[in-house]
Amino acid sequence: MVEAKILKNGGQWAVDACDALTGPRFSDHPDYLFRPYLGPAHLNAVDQVAAWMGEAGLATRVDGAGNLIGRYGDGARTLIVGSHIDSVRDAGNYDGPLGVMLGIAACAALNAAGRQLPFAIEVYAFGDEEGSRFPAPMLCSRAVAGVLTPGALDVADAQGVGLARALELNGLAMSRFMDARRDPSELLGYVEAHIEQGPVLEAEGLALGVVTAIAAQIRYAARVSGVAGHAGTNAMALRKDALAGAADMMLAIERIAGSGPSDLVGTVGRISAAPGAPNVVPGEVSFTIDLRAGTLDVLEPAEAAVVAGLKAIAVRRGLGLVLDKTHQLPPSPCDLALRAMLSRAVQSVGLTARDIVSGAGHDAMIFSRLTPSAMLFIRCKDGISHNPLESVEAADADLALRALLNLIDQLEAQHA
Amino acid sequence: MVEAKILKNGGQWAVDACDALTGPRFSDHPDYLFRPYLGPAHLNAVDQVAAWMGEAGLATRVDGAGNLIGRYGDGARTLIVGSHIDSVRDAGNYDGPLGVMLGIAACAALNAAGRQLPFAIEVYAFGDEEGSRFPAPMLCSRAVAGVLTPGALDVADAQGVGLARALELNGLAMSRFMDARRDPSELLGYVEAHIEQGPVLEAEGLALGVVTAIAAQIRYAARVSGVAGHAGTNAMALRKDALAGAADMMLAIERIAGSGPSDLVGTVGRISAAPGAPNVVPGEVSFTIDLRAGTLDVLEPAEAAVVAGLKAIAVRRGLGLVLDKTHQLPPSPCDLALRAMLSRAVQSVGLTARDIVSGAGHDAMIFSRLTPSAMLFIRCKDGISHNPLESVEAADADLALRALLNLIDQLEAQHA
Repeated sequence: MVEAKILKNGGQWAVDACDALTGPRFSDHPDYLFRPYLGPAHLNAVDQVAAWMGEAGLATRVDGAGNLIGRYGDGARTLIVGSHIDSVRDAGNYDGPLGVMLGIAACAALNAAGRQLPFAIEVYAFGDEEGSRFPAPMLCSRAVAGVLTPGALDVADAQGVGLARALELNGLAMSRFMDARRDPSELLGYVEAHIEQGPVLEAEGLALGVVTAIAAQIRYAARVSGVAGHAGTNAMALRKDALAGAADMMLAIERIAGSGPSDLVGTVGRISAAPGAPNVVPGEVSFTIDLRAGTLDVLEPAEAAVVAGLKAIAVRRGLGLVLDKTHQLPPSPCDLALRAMLSRAVQSVGLTARDIVSGAGHDAMIFSRLTPSAMLFIRCKDGISHNPLESVEAADADLALRALLNLIDQLEAQHA
Repeated sequence: MVEAKILKNGGQWAVDACDALTGPRFSDHPDYLFRPYLGPAHLNAVDQVAAWMGEAGLATRVDGAGNLIGRYGDGARTLIVGSHIDSVRDAGNYDGPLGVMLGIAACAALNAAGRQLPFAIEVYAFGDEEGSRFPAPMLCSRAVAGVLTPGALDVADAQGVGLARALELNGLAMSRFMDARRDPSELLGYVEAHIEQGPVLEAEGLALGVVTAIAAQIRYAARVSGVAGHAGTNAMALRKDALAGAADMMLAIERIAGSGPSDLVGTVGRISAAPGAPNVVPGEVSFTIDLRAGTLDVLEPAEAAVVAGLKAIAVRRGLGLVLDKTHQLPPSPCDLALRAMLSRAVQSVGLTARDIVSGAGHDAMIFSRLTPSAMLFIRCKDGISHNPLESVEAADADLALRALLNLIDQLEAQHA
């Protein structure tokens, strides 16, 4: 009986349930975990998670976008506890599913205690957050939040299967996709528990963190032009080496990001140098710049410093520099009141309420446009995610569960 | 009549002859100059250059390795003036051919003056220096110098055509390849005029340079290991970013090479970062290191500084570092006495005799193992080479010709 296990140690149950969702039935690749939206593994996962929801006392349904929803209790308004059950390719077990399982475990505990709340709780298992099948992440939470542009659904996967056909193959219909939308007046808020996917909590010896915002993000494509030349015949003082210039720029980015608050990060993830022969001084280098911070107050001066710093390096070295802004995402701040309640909830289980900015995107970022939203981060081993080595302690998951239950207690008191 | 043009302005004739050697007959690619060893264009070039040699009063022959040789005068010993007539892909006009044409122009001048020298002069037009067809550069000068290992001839081109078959298709035979070897006791020395292929002479306003040595060269493959992670969730202070570490290392290489004498050069020409996504901190970076200097006294301390500097950066950043030495070439010093004569020759035409190290390899480097060898560098525009933009002033070529003739005068006086 699932419920008994949940009640004994809900954190352990949640971690075990994530692990159980990784066998051959739950992955579309034989060698590693890969559970893309609307694939066979996803459908099997919906069935399995729905079964667990049922055993925990939740009434289940699937909405027009393929999200699985388990509802506990009743009321004019609803608190949504959610996360996603799709995965990246060669994924870990916990990115997404852990938040769903903790929502189920919380409802199981409320159900076992016969708790009648002044609001309903719905646990959402979103079908697509990662965008690992269609090139459009968070399709499902965007449908719920009603922020999808019409063209956003005109997508196909790498095999050319369109979203409409994929829905049809699973008994769903494109015409009903937007029915997943929720009316904000019916909602109390949204809360999502998720592994941190970074090393900050572990480094500080903390099990949980309260997300203040999902980071604003800016991405540039940088192109540095120098003069290619023979590695043997071009004296150092006369070179215009595009790669040495790019190295200078990369260190400037690291220095600027490293001298800001801890939520400011700057990354050069991709680089190429042409012509790319060991005996030729590179004449052209392209690289990407990814800058993120929790607020524009931090991000914008950092961006200005990076742009000015790179231009100064280019001028000093006699290099050409083109900076194209390829991507810009505003910050998604969490709701102040809900965040404060979540902080008290974390303190109620004996922990310091550590504020943390989420550098990664999450469904909560979409929900913040619909209803007050908050996120609880759970420490993960070595900060590793999107990797089979992803690991989380059952004891940490249990602390997260107890914090969620305390948050629900606070909301009950507030709405009594 | 070629001879008349040569006598009027030998430098202009040499430049024009290089330009004339670029039409469709002299390239194996329709869109750019590409004259690989033993291809149709090379054979046409041999015929054309042989015709010019004949008009200049030289007796021509082709040796077992396919080198074209034009002989002027007679004597127990021979001064070789040479360079190569093969080219890289998408080549410039002067890298190689200019040295051959200046040798022809010098002999034409001697011939017109009816000069009887106490030694013969042979102008060599080597068939392969670049290694742009077979993966074995300087096959032809190595054959002449007798420094080919037996296995060195067991090579095939990108189409799978072996050297033996390529020779056969051109009326040559592998069994006669080694007959190209010369007996050092019959030789007076080797002198090669060549464009600098670098920017040093131009930067100093000098038309000519006297090569002191062909640089020693060391090549490393470097591999930096950090920890890949999400660009958004990994705080700067906790990262082990392999690419930021590599940037630090590239600047250290630039700094070490730049703080040495001007013949010391250090180049990172090829780099790759994995996984290579804009939103992932790179976990693995590979790059090449090319270090050169005219003497081991300069190169070895620089190499030690680079190795120690890179290791210190890896330790400081908590990164792994593997350095594999993939290539090592000793310096090829030019003959002191011949170099001194060449310096006097340069002074005789009113120029400063600027000592310069050749960072690039040349046939002279092979000949230095056979006979006293010297090289004369000619300024080229913007230091550009291996590129159709390669450019040289006829006036500079004429100064080189007059310096070569003065060198021959000095040798005549010495051997009279």
